[in-house]
Amino acid sequence: MYFERIVSEGLSHFSYIIGNGGEAVVIDPRRDCDIYIKKTIKEDMRITHILETHRNEDYLIGSLELSSQTGAEIWHADTQWDYKYGQAVEEGQKWKLGNMVLEALHTPGHTPGSMSYLLHDPSGTPWMVFCGDALFAGDVGRVDLMGMDRAEEMAGMLYDSLFQKLLPLGDEVLLNPAHGMGSVCGASIAPRMWTSIGLERKLNPRIQAKNKQEFISTTVKELERPPYFKQMERLNLEGPHILGFLPYLFPLSLQEFSDKKKQSHVLDTRMELDFSSAFVPDSLSIWLDGIASFAGWFLSYDRPVLLVTEAEDPTKIVRLLLRMGYDDLEGFLSGGIHSWLLHGKPAGSIHTLMVQDFCRELDKKEQLWILDVRSNEELDQNGRITGAHHIHITQLPNQMSDVPKDIPVYIFCGSGLRSMIAASLLKRNGWDQLSVILGGFAGWNSITCPIQKPDK
Amino acid sequence: MYFERIVSEGLSHFSYIIGNGGEAVVIDPRRDCDIYIKKTIKEDMRITHILETHRNEDYLIGSLELSSQTGAEIWHADTQWDYKYGQAVEEGQKWKLGNMVLEALHTPGHTPGSMSYLLHDPSGTPWMVFCGDALFAGDVGRVDLMGMDRAEEMAGMLYDSLFQKLLPLGDEVLLNPAHGMGSVCGASIAPRMWTSIGLERKLNPRIQAKNKQEFISTTVKELERPPYFKQMERLNLEGPHILGFLPYLFPLSLQEFSDKKKQSHVLDTRMELDFSSAFVPDSLSIWLDGIASFAGWFLSYDRPVLLVTEAEDPTKIVRLLLRMGYDDLEGFLSGGIHSWLLHGKPAGSIHTLMVQDFCRELDKKEQLWILDVRSNEELDQNGRITGAHHIHITQLPNQMSDVPKDIPVYIFCGSGLRSMIAASLLKRNGWDQLSVILGGFAGWNSITCPIQKPDK
Amino acid sequence: MYFERIVSEGLSHFSYIIGNGGEAVVIDPRRDCDIYIKKTIKEDMRITHILETHRNEDYLIGSLELSSQTGAEIWHADTQWDYKYGQAVEEGQKWKLGNMVLEALHTPGHTPGSMSYLLHDPSGTPWMVFCGDALFAGDVGRVDLMGMDRAEEMAGMLYDSLFQKLLPLGDEVLLNPAHGMGSVCGASIAPRMWTSIGLERKLNPRIQAKNKQEFISTTVKELERPPYFKQMERLNLEGPHILGFLPYLFPLSLQEFSDKKKQSHVLDTRMELDFSSAFVPDSLSIWLDGIASFAGWFLSYDRPVLLVTEAEDPTKIVRLLLRMGYDDLEGFLSGGIHSWLLHGKPAGSIHTLMVQDFCRELDKKEQLWILDVRSNEELDQNGRITGAHHIHITQLPNQMSDVPKDIPVYIFCGSGLRSMIAASLLKRNGWDQLSVILGGFAGWNSITCPIQKPDK
Amino acid sequence: MYFERIVSEGLSHFSYIIGNGGEAVVIDPRRDCDIYIKKTIKEDMRITHILETHRNEDYLIGSLELSSQTGAEIWHADTQWDYKYGQAVEEGQKWKLGNMVLEALHTPGHTPGSMSYLLHDPSGTPWMVFCGDALFAGDVGRVDLMGMDRAEEMAGMLYDSLFQKLLPLGDEVLLNPAHGMGSVCGASIAPRMWTSIGLERKLNPRIQAKNKQEFISTTVKELERPPYFKQMERLNLEGPHILGFLPYLFPLSLQEFSDKKKQSHVLDTRMELDFSSAFVPDSLSIWLDGIASFAGWFLSYDRPVLLVTEAEDPTKIVRLLLRMGYDDLEGFLSGGIHSWLLHGKPAGSIHTLMVQDFCRELDKKEQLWILDVRSNEELDQNGRITGAHHIHITQLPNQMSDVPKDIPVYIFCGSGLRSMIAASLLKRNGWDQLSVILGGFAGWNSITCPIQKPDK
Repeated sequence: MYFERIVSEGLSHFSYIIGNGGEAVVIDPRRDCDIYIKKTIKEDMRITHILETHRNEDYLIGSLELSSQTGAEIWHADTQWDYKYGQAVEEGQKWKLGNMVLEALHTPGHTPGSMSYLLHDPSGTPWMVFCGDALFAGDVGRVDLMGMDRAEEMAGMLYDSLFQKLLPLGDEVLLNPAHGMGSVCGASIAPRMWTSIGLERKLNPRIQAKNKQEFISTTVKELERPPYFKQMERLNLEGPHILGFLPYLFPLSLQEFSDKKKQSHVLDTRMELDFSSAFVPDSLSIWLDGIASFAGWFLSYDRPVLLVTEAEDPTKIVRLLLRMGYDDLEGFLSGGIHSWLLHGKPAGSIHTLMVQDFCRELDKKEQLWILDVRSNEELDQNGRITGAHHIHITQLPNQMSDVPKDIPVYIFCGSGLRSMIAASLLKRNGWDQLSVILGGFAGWNSITCPIQKPDK
Repeated sequence: MYFERIVSEGLSHFSYIIGNGGEAVVIDPRRDCDIYIKKTIKEDMRITHILETHRNEDYLIGSLELSSQTGAEIWHADTQWDYKYGQAVEEGQKWKLGNMVLEALHTPGHTPGSMSYLLHDPSGTPWMVFCGDALFAGDVGRVDLMGMDRAEEMAGMLYDSLFQKLLPLGDEVLLNPAHGMGSVCGASIAPRMWTSIGLERKLNPRIQAKNKQEFISTTVKELERPPYFKQMERLNLEGPHILGFLPYLFPLSLQEFSDKKKQSHVLDTRMELDFSSAFVPDSLSIWLDGIASFAGWFLSYDRPVLLVTEAEDPTKIVRLLLRMGYDDLEGFLSGGIHSWLLHGKPAGSIHTLMVQDFCRELDKKEQLWILDVRSNEELDQNGRITGAHHIHITQLPNQMSDVPKDIPVYIFCGSGLRSMIAASLLKRNGWDQLSVILGGFAGWNSITCPIQKPDK
Repeated sequence: MYFERIVSEGLSHFSYIIGNGGEAVVIDPRRDCDIYIKKTIKEDMRITHILETHRNEDYLIGSLELSSQTGAEIWHADTQWDYKYGQAVEEGQKWKLGNMVLEALHTPGHTPGSMSYLLHDPSGTPWMVFCGDALFAGDVGRVDLMGMDRAEEMAGMLYDSLFQKLLPLGDEVLLNPAHGMGSVCGASIAPRMWTSIGLERKLNPRIQAKNKQEFISTTVKELERPPYFKQMERLNLEGPHILGFLPYLFPLSLQEFSDKKKQSHVLDTRMELDFSSAFVPDSLSIWLDGIASFAGWFLSYDRPVLLVTEAEDPTKIVRLLLRMGYDDLEGFLSGGIHSWLLHGKPAGSIHTLMVQDFCRELDKKEQLWILDVRSNEELDQNGRITGAHHIHITQLPNQMSDVPKDIPVYIFCGSGLRSMIAASLLKRNGWDQLSVILGGFAGWNSITCPIQKPDK
Repeated sequence: MYFERIVSEGLSHFSYIIGNGGEAVVIDPRRDCDIYIKKTIKEDMRITHILETHRNEDYLIGSLELSSQTGAEIWHADTQWDYKYGQAVEEGQKWKLGNMVLEALHTPGHTPGSMSYLLHDPSGTPWMVFCGDALFAGDVGRVDLMGMDRAEEMAGMLYDSLFQKLLPLGDEVLLNPAHGMGSVCGASIAPRMWTSIGLERKLNPRIQAKNKQEFISTTVKELERPPYFKQMERLNLEGPHILGFLPYLFPLSLQEFSDKKKQSHVLDTRMELDFSSAFVPDSLSIWLDGIASFAGWFLSYDRPVLLVTEAEDPTKIVRLLLRMGYDDLEGFLSGGIHSWLLHGKPAGSIHTLMVQDFCRELDKKEQLWILDVRSNEELDQNGRITGAHHIHITQLPNQMSDVPKDIPVYIFCGSGLRSMIAASLLKRNGWDQLSVILGGFAGWNSITCPIQKPDK
């Protein structure tokens, strides 16, 4: 018997390989699907079935890609929607996997047609359940994706799925959700990376609701929705473009890069300290590990993407961007930012300063504007900076005009990373007097400053 | 939070890394401990503590090795014995790991001082338990290691450990034992590689005992004990020789190999089909994946070991043998068996035949002797071959004289692999009329033969 | 400046990457061309040009594949033939590579339109020459490929190419041919893997010819020509099927394998000792490292190929077969030959014996037939076995009827590897009394036997 | 036959493995010698001999390390010095390697006892020569290491070695020196990574000398000598500390790092853009690929080394530092500079600006001081910046007092990398008004500025 959870970092997406008797099933594969094929070949197994738990919004499902390379059958949940490929799963449907059985359970709520898959032990006893976005460690799936007008209805469905389908499976049953901590699909998933039905019954705050009404009222909430969700929803029904293999990303000479720049977006994946010193004008700054969370907010699909990176091997970036459907990658700047500078090309820069220096600045500066780009949750949990204006990083494109252009703007986030995204957005829209506070709120919180400390 | 189970194949040994807040604990490390160090460095963590669940018999614990390379503290269970290094764990002792706590639970039975380690969630709720050899998926630890005269006493202790300590932790608690299916530490561990207290409560046949007496009577059983256990017990108390790093295994020229051969054991790790055609005289045949299970029975520590292999990279063999304390590895035959043959050196061979041919043989041969080297359990479960003489492979050295030398001997096991071990043992003790049945009992069972089928 | 020789083992094929100033040229790429792309991306370079030295017969050129993945231009030599893609190189044509220049030299002889490419140092001085199959270490390219009626003409051309074009470049110029020792493109390439014009002038026996006439008379010789050459010639002009990426080879269940077996060829890539003990009936035995040399002789393109292997990772086999245009690979037997045996499927076997045993056999056997499958060159160099019948392995399909079916046949080669190919060919054509001599002529030569020793 | 050049980047050091018939010789091994062992084991060979071409000054020779792990014999050149281990090579000494012979040639000049090793083809013809630091591509070994008073004498010896020993071997002989472009052992080694005696005879400017006198006068020159050379010279005679294996570098918590900081040197290996934004106070900045060239100038051996890095895997840094005898490595800052900032620890920063901005600065600033840290050779070749003060980076520690503290200092080098080393040195000695020009002279040279252009 073979079981492996494949973690796709950034999206905090969990997919699964379950194998037995030479055959394997993959649940919710990602698009760069070579990992499932290589692992199963190494185990002398064939992938015969691909099961989806729901129509995803946050990444491109790899079912069609994986099927085209292996011949495996695709089975869809959420078949109320018009899938262009694969087959419709029905409640109670079973698949044999050697001496074990996988069984479909309808567990709607996150989406109307969400399915869970229950793996039985050879004796027929429930062993593990793959519950998609119905139930996470410490959280439940969001119910606002059908629109806020249907959110109560969806929350009600989810209550029934949890309390009538999943929890009754038994405390001992191992729980394998589709996401871990850090995913946008759950507001506050816990770092409990392995869990069971019973652990969630005890520890998951949502499951503590005394009744359906209380569950609905605490669960219905509008969460943010990156613009790329629309693209994912559509492509996951139509089937994204088949890649065939992981495309190469080629180096571009300075000349090629400069020529293509006008018709492209430039994405700079270096860390914030590096970016601040020099960057290709008009670049969007998103550090490598932030791509999965932020590209979908700020990088549109309307033009090809050019990359400025620090790593020699751009494969990781390609994987991250393909998972979100950014297929039109033109290449990366050969020699990186150093090549740009060595040729004397004009580069941008963003002023940075330490929290200590900012303290001193506050004393002397007559006029300044503090921009805090953290989320509401972070403000509530960790405190606010007196006098700061709050615009969550994701809302900055819509509220940019609130930021003054004529006085110095000091940008705060938790650490400095998101501040640099914000600074790069403002910079390419004409703001000039920008400073990023390095260490962010964490650093701020660690020192004693002559100004009033954040409320808690 | 970081959690990883490290599986050492062959021994089916599970060790664990648990990390949080930049620090990590390793439970029951193996001797070739580079894997723990590399993984934790990659995660930007330091190993600060090494916890042992019990004094092991089946492999060399890597605590001292890992401590010498990292400075981590060693904590022993079974401190009734005279450890030469490390410190004694006490029931209830706690270790902080970031915002989580690990707690020692005394769970004797497999050994008198066995400890389990309970990992609490940051909220203080029991999350996972590392139970050593107390409880496995589908089995419990063996109780015969203190001698059969103390087996009932040990079984009683184990009952209390299970029913008063482990099961009360709650069905939802995840269970992390020290072994998986295939280990000699449990007779019938299930292939349920991930499990919970509740799954074991439901599915583990030993836990179904109605009371302590029934538990004792079904659990007390004398299992086989490879001779190398003695060596492991002693070295695990004294601390094995510190390696510092994984030693290289060098190729030996034909001349060097021949010269050293007289004072050494030759271990041939090729598959049985390959071995049968030609081997260095007096070699012991144990195929690579069988080393962990069989070297401890047939390979003594009294002389250095010379290897004949098929793989270019002998690292895997070195790891397997070092885990069992075979430190005196002289090298491998450069060019492998082909070098031997190309120089016209006399080689041994073992006759093999398919089950169909054996069927025909049975009809015509006047005199023959069938040797079945499978275990009693296999005979009971899968059936017997009419007319076969049964000597379990592990007992062959003691019962060799029962095998006739003057008539053809046909050797059976499940597949042909263990038969080849048996044949190599007999061959170097002077038996000549040996044949190994390829496909073994599995092949035999798949065809229709003119002789009476095995009883079931 | 970047320079790397890529060695494709088996074919002993040398291709080259030369890079400078962010751009790279590849000379004579192989079909599985990922290696050139990965290496150049790592060096921050783009492949801009692909240069061919001649129309190859012994492998599929990867120009079209590499161009389709990188956009590089393809330049052909031998443009007297009707290429379906790429452009025609002309004598004297130059390509700039940073501050260096590559220049085409027409060096016919091996083929009518063979080209060499001379790399100049930045100062303009000749530095290295990539001479294709014109000149090797210790040998020159074969001249019989246009037919023996044109061989003298071709040898004359080659003489002029060598003595008027290549040697005059200067003794100090480094020589980079398209093949090393072991290739079928030169009968006796030396193990001098790095060489210069001057070293060849001194050491290459062909260059010692006193005049054109002597060169022609020693060079014109008909060498063997595997049947797959025809396929390579055609495909190299048309452009082979574009792979896009290295295909996966999937495991096939015993049932799938058995079903497909009737319409397929079974190729068994295990070593000869392993094969001899048990194999799927009608398999062709070619050990892994012998594929490049022997598949083209014995494996036809008329049916798909099924594989029986010993390695877990079949990637190496896929590469070897794709280089020769065997694209129709159906998969490998899951579980290998053991799976076959465990299911009691009837298997073939070939009797093997050591040279010592064969000596004894010779004394007692009344009738036997010794088949020596070595080449004429080997017989001349190393000696013959008295009484042996000689059929070179490559001629066996045509001369099979010379081998008697009714008396025991003992097969010899240099080591035992080619003997097993021969045995597998004879076996599937109905021969039954076959024995392979392990260690072959090398083993035979190492011992003293009661029969007359080979003439020398 | 096996031949491989092992390139140690940074030092541009070439070592060699030559193997034949199961045995191998290593010439001038580096200290982290695992690469030789792994490669030879993979080729089924034993390393039997280690040959040194001379007593090195620029790195620790790995002979003793490699011998302790393999048992190979060590043979020294320069045996006029008092080696504490190994044996003395003599002119004309020969070693058999299968059917080939290696022969020692005394080729003094770089050092008094330098040896070259000539590899003969099996026919006895000279094939390759391993000439240590006697002759490079485009340069010859420096002759100033015995002191300038003996430089003429050494240059005379070198002339004889080149013109009477090496060149007479023949134009066709392949040349394998101990260094490539970028080494401190030759002032201007060419990028001709593979060469022959004849290519050097034609292209090497030093070999063009019309007679011994001219050779001496153009060759005698005092080159810079990093302070660590003394350490290397001593340790290479005594034998450096045996490592046994490549040590791990562990992460240090912020607390541990801070505690150790007082008694240690902090080396920050990030790129200059990253470093400039924030660094641990008093750090020395040397980017990763600059370590081999610059650590020996600025990092003393008197205290342990703490690291701040950007890479997850610090193995490459460990290798670079061990090659220069920096064995006392305490660990790296866990979480890197971000951890420092998130805890609000005070960090340093260096102002940076683009060349365009500096142009504008020049117009308006009343007082400023331009520091150019390039070498004399670079100034001569590429031009000077009008008004700049020149102190080569290596001389900065001695001439620091020439740099004014009270006016802004703008630092130039070729690119910005060495400028950041200079800035970090000045900063920790109390300078504050420092700016580094990004893109350096290369960038400067690419644009048109309102100030007078550098002389050429």
